Amino acid sequence: MKEKIALLVGRFQPFHKGHLHAVMYILERHSYLYIGVGSALESHTKRNPFTFSERLEMIRLALEEAGISRDLYYIIPIPDSKYHGTWVSLVKILIPKFDIVYTNDPLTRILMYESGYNVEHIPYFHREIYTGEEFRNRVVTNREWREIVPNAVYNYIMKNKLYTRIIQLWKTDKVR
Amino acid sequence: MKEKIALLVGRFQPFHKGHLHAVMYILERHSYLYIGVGSALESHTKRNPFTFSERLEMIRLALEEAGISRDLYYIIPIPDSKYHGTWVSLVKILIPKFDIVYTNDPLTRILMYESGYNVEHIPYFHREIYTGEEFRNRVVTNREWREIVPNAVYNYIMKNKLYTRIIQLWKTDKVR
Amino acid sequence: MKEKIALLVGRFQPFHKGHLHAVMYILERHSYLYIGVGSALESHTKRNPFTFSERLEMIRLALEEAGISRDLYYIIPIPDSKYHGTWVSLVKILIPKFDIVYTNDPLTRILMYESGYNVEHIPYFHREIYTGEEFRNRVVTNREWREIVPNAVYNYIMKNKLYTRIIQLWKTDKVR
Amino acid sequence: MKEKIALLVGRFQPFHKGHLHAVMYILERHSYLYIGVGSALESHTKRNPFTFSERLEMIRLALEEAGISRDLYYIIPIPDSKYHGTWVSLVKILIPKFDIVYTNDPLTRILMYESGYNVEHIPYFHREIYTGEEFRNRVVTNREWREIVPNAVYNYIMKNKLYTRIIQLWKTDKVR
Amino acid sequence: MKEKIALLVGRFQPFHKGHLHAVMYILERHSYLYIGVGSALESHTKRNPFTFSERLEMIRLALEEAGISRDLYYIIPIPDSKYHGTWVSLVKILIPKFDIVYTNDPLTRILMYESGYNVEHIPYFHREIYTGEEFRNRVVTNREWREIVPNAVYNYIMKNKLYTRIIQLWKTDKVR
Amino acid sequence: MKEKIALLVGRFQPFHKGHLHAVMYILERHSYLYIGVGSALESHTKRNPFTFSERLEMIRLALEEAGISRDLYYIIPIPDSKYHGTWVSLVKILIPKFDIVYTNDPLTRILMYESGYNVEHIPYFHREIYTGEEFRNRVVTNREWREIVPNAVYNYIMKNKLYTRIIQLWKTDKVR
Repeated sequence: MKEKIALLVGRFQPFHKGHLHAVMYILERHSYLYIGVGSALESHTKRNPFTFSERLEMIRLALEEAGISRDLYYIIPIPDSKYHGTWVSLVKILIPKFDIVYTNDPLTRILMYESGYNVEHIPYFHREIYTGEEFRNRVVTNREWREIVPNAVYNYIMKNKLYTRIIQLWKTDKVR
Repeated sequence: MKEKIALLVGRFQPFHKGHLHAVMYILERHSYLYIGVGSALESHTKRNPFTFSERLEMIRLALEEAGISRDLYYIIPIPDSKYHGTWVSLVKILIPKFDIVYTNDPLTRILMYESGYNVEHIPYFHREIYTGEEFRNRVVTNREWREIVPNAVYNYIMKNKLYTRIIQLWKTDKVR
Repeated sequence: MKEKIALLVGRFQPFHKGHLHAVMYILERHSYLYIGVGSALESHTKRNPFTFSERLEMIRLALEEAGISRDLYYIIPIPDSKYHGTWVSLVKILIPKFDIVYTNDPLTRILMYESGYNVEHIPYFHREIYTGEEFRNRVVTNREWREIVPNAVYNYIMKNKLYTRIIQLWKTDKVR
Repeated sequence: MKEKIALLVGRFQPFHKGHLHAVMYILERHSYLYIGVGSALESHTKRNPFTFSERLEMIRLALEEAGISRDLYYIIPIPDSKYHGTWVSLVKILIPKFDIVYTNDPLTRILMYESGYNVEHIPYFHREIYTGEEFRNRVVTNREWREIVPNAVYNYIMKNKLYTRIIQLWKTDKVR
Repeated sequence: MKEKIALLVGRFQPFHKGHLHAVMYILERHSYLYIGVGSALESHTKRNPFTFSERLEMIRLALEEAGISRDLYYIIPIPDSKYHGTWVSLVKILIPKFDIVYTNDPLTRILMYESGYNVEHIPYFHREIYTGEEFRNRVVTNREWREIVPNAVYNYIMKNKLYTRIIQLWKTDKVR
Repeated sequence: MKEKIALLVGRFQPFHKGHLHAVMYILERHSYLYIGVGSALESHTKRNPFTFSERLEMIRLALEEAGISRDLYYIIPIPDSKYHGTWVSLVKILIPKFDIVYTNDPLTRILMYESGYNVEHIPYFHREIYTGEEFRNRVVTNREWREIVPNAVYNYIMKNKLYTRIIQLWKTDKVR
């Protein structure tokens, strides 16, 4: 297993401690990790408040803070495909050869599995706290959210005042 | 009426006994039937689990089983248009000349009616049982669903284990 | 302020008395007004029943009825962008130079603000009555809706029987 | 004829004296004119250097200069449709009811004709000089182009230095 | 080989004697044939004058005329994908399971080959005459084109006066 | 200047010695470089034969071979925008904050300049040899192309037999 190349798929809105735990879990088992950032061109929605460029910076800062070498991973955006049936081929256009896929998202799992990939679950790490949804709910209701994300992510969000965007977006009645 | 060409529009997720009843009802009244499969490129969603190619095979098997001649109908995919206001023109690109439209979907009815087509309702046939929604709900909750679809459709779904896809998709929190 | 050019963004489904009030409020403060009609290519949905061409006619009739000179405003359609992050650049392609943006929609406010524009709230005018949502709810439940819109809009909707489209669309279970 | 509403379709890259002549020709024959600006969201290409907002301003300035009342016409952008077969329905979404179409573009003529519209040719007015292509060629080769466009258009292009964009774009080897 | 299912990919603008020859060649070797009609939603361009619905009718009439049973083939539209890298997955959404692909188009060959499919050439049949390009050139220059297509196709084009569309389209300077 | 962050935009089909020269030129002047890979989702065309994942691997191998530290640059895909007028905002979604843009493409230069960016030319480095066009022409005509690209790129193309794709694509008459 150790020599295999892994792909981790997520939206990372934002990159939280559960994600960090997943990256470390995978890197214990495999030699290299592609981090595929899904819905990469989406931003300014309730579920996807951050742009890809913001997510890229947060992930890189968090992994640097955690002492994970840049020689072990690469972060690549994956736009949504128009149809679910073409999503895997979009992934192939963007991500170099990988051997195994890590994700807990049911749709990603089915699509990858039906295309012949090995798909693995990521063991949940305190999922009652460490989710993007919990993060966004706490920001909006003005509760403590600092513990959910790595320090580097907390500092990035505070410095750029990105919490205000989330609070503003919550007021919209837009479906997306 | 008998010499007129009819168009039946539906998503057929999957083709159930209500659909079969509709086909027979229309073919009693008209000489030829185009079956337009809507949202044709959608798949792997809660509302649209099956691909067009799967739906095409299921419909053909079910109509063959029912003894309906291939000389009487043709099945054509209709992708969703980007805007509702252009949908009818997309139908015209894909479906040869037809005289009358059968559908119970309110949106399809309005769009076709505003474009000058004759639009007819299809008499419901035990609609408390024979709907795609009821099928999908039963599959997900592990209840008997065999009675909802023609035997040929049941066998196709079982042989290709397509029920597992529906069960998996149910776990996602994706909006689509 | 008086010499500045303003942009008012809305969907105007339909143009109601709250919108008319907003136009008059802005024209008291600025020399010229661009009225940007959002989701311009959407139509035949619950939230967006009217086409742009219908909305254009309703707005022009209502402003003429209110005695507002055509030398003071121009109405321009703005299609939805694929991604929120590109929406402001789409606005720039379509709307000539403007100095200040009026909108109460949180998403529009954030996008314009992050692009460096001055963004102003519009004082609400009896918002418990004058909203597109209230209009559409009343039409669907067959309650009096005439008081919500300017007379010219009422007459346009009645003459073209556009209320029937709204009532029909309400029966659909489509997400959009 | 006089009471009919006409639609003039063009790209107006830029609005030249041939276009002005066409507008006057049509307004002698009909009571109202919609000016549909095609490829409305295209810009910064060799064939389509100007944005819609720039084209809108140039057309309005030229018609004002020519003394044509704003009560007689309205300018509306028409984005390209994805497929030619859906273009006419996109026009219907955007342009209020019209009775007759004026255009010399063969494709527009066929599409409108096949949809049942009356389509008329516009008599050419010194077509050896007054075309968008001639304008763009002269700008790029640094020859006199002032005579091709109305004075108001000339002044607009000079004031905003838009000729530099055309000259720059000519250097690209992009297909679009 | 005989029991294998084949896919023939082409644009069929229009279906000519070379195509008919290919269908017969393939059906001598395989038990069933899917005819995938590429660029299915394109129409009204120089290279793609006919809509899918017109092409569908022409192909069915020609195969009926040639005495080829409807039990041996099925015709399915394939829209262009946005990116070449996702085209094969679009084919999989639309066409039921096939074992071998027949096409002479270099791009289709590469895409299918890189996705692991068996790809076969079709022996050319008087390619100096039987091509869509030759057909369109002759129509436009008013030369005899009847010999290029099956009689059924000739009659369809004459009856619906579709040659006029090709002649008109030739006058456009549109790139597409 | 030294502390500024630069963006280099190109298609890198493939990454040749001219590109390598540009990267070194920029890194002498600035502290960090984002390499934006344009037309990122295009592949399998004459002008864009390689996928993004292939281009990513080639660039990383070439820069590693040249001894350029991974701490100095990051490679990010930029899909084409639907309209040129929205391209810069797509770049902003994907690329973190940058101060200066390096490109010789006229269109990119205009779009960035009109959005207020500093744009710099890259001094050409033996442009008669080191271009993607020259590379592709030599591959197709079976002439020596090894000298055009860094060794690492040569090895990657040979190992994966990617030259065959270019040769095959040259046979197509497709416009794209």
